[in-house]
Amino acid sequence: MALTGVIRPGHCQLRVLDLEESERFYTDVMGLKPMGRDASGRSYFKCLDELDHHSLILRQAPKAGMDFYAFKVLDEATLTQFEKDLNAHGVATERIPAGELLETGERVRFTAPTGHVFELYATKTMVGNGLGFDAPEAIIEGRRGISPLRLDHWQIHGPDLDGSRDLFTKVLGFQVVERIKLEDGETDVAVWLSCSNKAHDIAFVRDERANTLHHASYLLETWEQVLKAADIITVHRVSMDIGPLRHGITRGTTIYAFDPSGNRFETFCGGYAYYPDMPVITWPVEEMGRAVFYHTRQLNERFLSVVT
Amino acid sequence: MALTGVIRPGHCQLRVLDLEESERFYTDVMGLKPMGRDASGRSYFKCLDELDHHSLILRQAPKAGMDFYAFKVLDEATLTQFEKDLNAHGVATERIPAGELLETGERVRFTAPTGHVFELYATKTMVGNGLGFDAPEAIIEGRRGISPLRLDHWQIHGPDLDGSRDLFTKVLGFQVVERIKLEDGETDVAVWLSCSNKAHDIAFVRDERANTLHHASYLLETWEQVLKAADIITVHRVSMDIGPLRHGITRGTTIYAFDPSGNRFETFCGGYAYYPDMPVITWPVEEMGRAVFYHTRQLNERFLSVVT
Amino acid sequence: MALTGVIRPGHCQLRVLDLEESERFYTDVMGLKPMGRDASGRSYFKCLDELDHHSLILRQAPKAGMDFYAFKVLDEATLTQFEKDLNAHGVATERIPAGELLETGERVRFTAPTGHVFELYATKTMVGNGLGFDAPEAIIEGRRGISPLRLDHWQIHGPDLDGSRDLFTKVLGFQVVERIKLEDGETDVAVWLSCSNKAHDIAFVRDERANTLHHASYLLETWEQVLKAADIITVHRVSMDIGPLRHGITRGTTIYAFDPSGNRFETFCGGYAYYPDMPVITWPVEEMGRAVFYHTRQLNERFLSVVT
Amino acid sequence: MALTGVIRPGHCQLRVLDLEESERFYTDVMGLKPMGRDASGRSYFKCLDELDHHSLILRQAPKAGMDFYAFKVLDEATLTQFEKDLNAHGVATERIPAGELLETGERVRFTAPTGHVFELYATKTMVGNGLGFDAPEAIIEGRRGISPLRLDHWQIHGPDLDGSRDLFTKVLGFQVVERIKLEDGETDVAVWLSCSNKAHDIAFVRDERANTLHHASYLLETWEQVLKAADIITVHRVSMDIGPLRHGITRGTTIYAFDPSGNRFETFCGGYAYYPDMPVITWPVEEMGRAVFYHTRQLNERFLSVVT
Repeated sequence: MALTGVIRPGHCQLRVLDLEESERFYTDVMGLKPMGRDASGRSYFKCLDELDHHSLILRQAPKAGMDFYAFKVLDEATLTQFEKDLNAHGVATERIPAGELLETGERVRFTAPTGHVFELYATKTMVGNGLGFDAPEAIIEGRRGISPLRLDHWQIHGPDLDGSRDLFTKVLGFQVVERIKLEDGETDVAVWLSCSNKAHDIAFVRDERANTLHHASYLLETWEQVLKAADIITVHRVSMDIGPLRHGITRGTTIYAFDPSGNRFETFCGGYAYYPDMPVITWPVEEMGRAVFYHTRQLNERFLSVVT
Repeated sequence: MALTGVIRPGHCQLRVLDLEESERFYTDVMGLKPMGRDASGRSYFKCLDELDHHSLILRQAPKAGMDFYAFKVLDEATLTQFEKDLNAHGVATERIPAGELLETGERVRFTAPTGHVFELYATKTMVGNGLGFDAPEAIIEGRRGISPLRLDHWQIHGPDLDGSRDLFTKVLGFQVVERIKLEDGETDVAVWLSCSNKAHDIAFVRDERANTLHHASYLLETWEQVLKAADIITVHRVSMDIGPLRHGITRGTTIYAFDPSGNRFETFCGGYAYYPDMPVITWPVEEMGRAVFYHTRQLNERFLSVVT
Repeated sequence: MALTGVIRPGHCQLRVLDLEESERFYTDVMGLKPMGRDASGRSYFKCLDELDHHSLILRQAPKAGMDFYAFKVLDEATLTQFEKDLNAHGVATERIPAGELLETGERVRFTAPTGHVFELYATKTMVGNGLGFDAPEAIIEGRRGISPLRLDHWQIHGPDLDGSRDLFTKVLGFQVVERIKLEDGETDVAVWLSCSNKAHDIAFVRDERANTLHHASYLLETWEQVLKAADIITVHRVSMDIGPLRHGITRGTTIYAFDPSGNRFETFCGGYAYYPDMPVITWPVEEMGRAVFYHTRQLNERFLSVVT
Repeated sequence: MALTGVIRPGHCQLRVLDLEESERFYTDVMGLKPMGRDASGRSYFKCLDELDHHSLILRQAPKAGMDFYAFKVLDEATLTQFEKDLNAHGVATERIPAGELLETGERVRFTAPTGHVFELYATKTMVGNGLGFDAPEAIIEGRRGISPLRLDHWQIHGPDLDGSRDLFTKVLGFQVVERIKLEDGETDVAVWLSCSNKAHDIAFVRDERANTLHHASYLLETWEQVLKAADIITVHRVSMDIGPLRHGITRGTTIYAFDPSGNRFETFCGGYAYYPDMPVITWPVEEMGRAVFYHTRQLNERFLSVVT
């Protein structure tokens, strides 16, 4: 088994100010597939090429932001092992019973040093992408909106970056792929971590605002789809942050914009294939502009200041 | 460590009829980077975005084909463990000393049931892709020829497909991603195996011609690069097999053509992200045409008959 | 007025064996916009980015093929002048009254030496592309099927290529852009003619089968859209001829396939910008394979033999 | 003859502060082909797919900006006719003798109401694009730098926009394709004019700074090439203005950046096909942001303020 342990970002629960408006946005503009509401009124969505039941849960709340971030692990034995390893590392965990989220098995919940709530789980109902597994077609027709393939990663902010980075690398098996370092050459300002062949599955940024979301990122397959996403964002007068452009970090291409509640999202494409024998790429903080926005070579104020 | 065990196709040693002509082809047309010759006269090449010293070795010989196929494993401890596991599975192994190939550590060699010689290794000198790991640029300028990013996978043929498939899945940790089955619904005609997030790292096809190569595949980043590859192939009057078009299997896009010795190569792009919780995709043999060439929906005679 | 005279291919009337099946095909698979039927039962369609009322008329008939091919001219004065010029050149013309086709002004009809019926017209109701002309959006949302931007050109066959070529160049102001010549270095096997900045607006091929259609071509904006077209063609099991690939002639990219009645269509992208000071590009007949299919460098039997 | 009169932007003479530095920039970064210097020390360049001897002339001068802008006309008779028409319109003209620019015939020079110097010419030595006109290849290998296909258009500023617009439309046969209007609904703030099938061949913007250059635009063939241009711009630390993004006007995609002397250039791709029966697209000035930068929906200060 070459891909083991934590296998990918699985779902997240996003707080939105107006559920119905947000459902329309995530259905018509983002082009996610609505998967129904649960008894508590939360609304579920999946991306075009995801096989599991959902990757986004919307919860109406008076304040935007993310309730929790969940990774899928290989199997239930792996889940139990991670639970033990977290506890051994001094991290308290909670078992959320199966069914608390629709079509989802037991989740192991813990809070990371940056203040964010994470979950691990091994089981979710496979609903497929509509193509089936028996001599499938190669494309999914009838896409509408931005229509990303998958939830790709999150960038999240908090003061104890070192703590969360160490938890993810030492306990959960992630690897540091790229980092931005302060002038002291020691302190990480930001780290990009992978649990797969992707250039990143999560990024932590040092920020005094604990437990904050910078963006949830969705995967597009081509630079032409990134352009189309930017076009759709304008047609629907969605609040744009920046893009289309390329990142220095990961080399991926990107757009950042905001959902109706002010939560930033990214539509991301590309990035190099990561392998665990690759050295860490390091950026001095004075190159942060080019690191993040390769073409403009500078960060814009809004990108730096807005989190939810 | 989320990506463990065998991590990727690492190198292969290809027999060519005229070494100098082949060096020109792989340098000017394929656009690989020449990395020198060794004392025995073998010629080494790496792809644009590969970090290790080489991924292709050319050896002049009177008959085309592949001498051996090598996978990189995570580290030396993993190498030793696989050696034991292979032996325990009844597969004889041989240790090739470090340095037998330029800049390469010890290799564990074995012969698979389909007759192909495989190698595992953990160590090769990292020469980088020219960008460095300190605030790198995001593109590599001055590409020439087809200029693939990486060695991607091989498709190889032999009678005992079942034996090689089982060896790779049971001992080496690969997973079956897609398969074509005979009318009996049982017998695999062909299997595509992954050791990563890629839709395939190797494919085996049942064929009475043991130890044969169907193609070595090289990764391109976009469909536009696939077009450019086809253009370059024509400009240089390289023998074309088929393409550009899409595969049903993996959904990737492709061209097949032949090097000057008649060894088939592929320039491949895309393919879905594979995760180990994905069910196996199965194709009945009567859908083989669409499975392989999604657009033409039929195999051409040359694709079926020519191996080296 | 820099673009004068004949300005573009405007419409054509295609014979189909089953009107309802063809309406479904041109709506759902080709992704044209249905514009209604007329009193005689003919069915009208326009392409995504065309402003005029229609560019395709389907007529049910027992035999496939094209009834007539129409070019739009700059204005009614130009139409009258061309009528005179045609008569002066010895070509009989007929005025078809306004309204004989829906939303279309008077047409001047004549038969070319290759046996094809052509029409010129200056007036057709402008219905727009849905974006309007007042601060429009830059994309049209909700595209389905192949969804070409425009009718691009036709390739048609007949014995008296010289006669039609001379009529189009001497009377209608077209220019020869590329040509394939027989071994004698004199005789045109095929000619590509432009009345605009496009590399071709019509092509004539010498063929004993008078008044036949090789293909009607529809314009796509990118090579990625060409791939998507090929995918859609397979999803709907449309009969494919060849592609995706590039032409040597025009350098455009292409797919050829067949509508349900067996009429060949092309989805075409690109081609160089043509200017009237460009020398004619000439191909010897032994290079015809590369001229037409740049990547395969040979014509397939079906492409050569099937016309309607 | 369907394309008549003025056929395209042909060349322009740009003032640069340091000729050798600029020669390196236009050769290595922009990827133009150097065509030599003339006796007065001016340096000539052509784009990849242009057939005529040159489209850019660099002249060292203490102040950046453009000396003159030249359009090619269909033939010498057309040139003479335009000379007469300009004079009849009250515009003084000057005949510049053949050979004053390398490989160029007589030019008719005049000053437009916005203060810019224009030239018309019919003759320039055809050097070709390297492919020849006899069974050519479909791609030009060995491109380096941004490598645009052609000079595409200019955007230039001056107070008497109305005067230049009328001169170009009434005398030179251009058509207004898009315009931005002041709140009065009458006054043009900017106009985009075409002499071909292109969405624009020149744009005039009302600006008190007479005879100024906003940008010279170069044509790329795909959105992927636009990305590559942005990457190259960053690799070479070229001063970037904005992009990549899409225009509302023309729907083309773009990057703006500055040459070493501070002259803004654009790398442009796409834009709809223009035909003379298309109504003028009109933008109210309050939509100017979206008109110019479709994705950001606002103009940046630098784009508004910097001209040379």
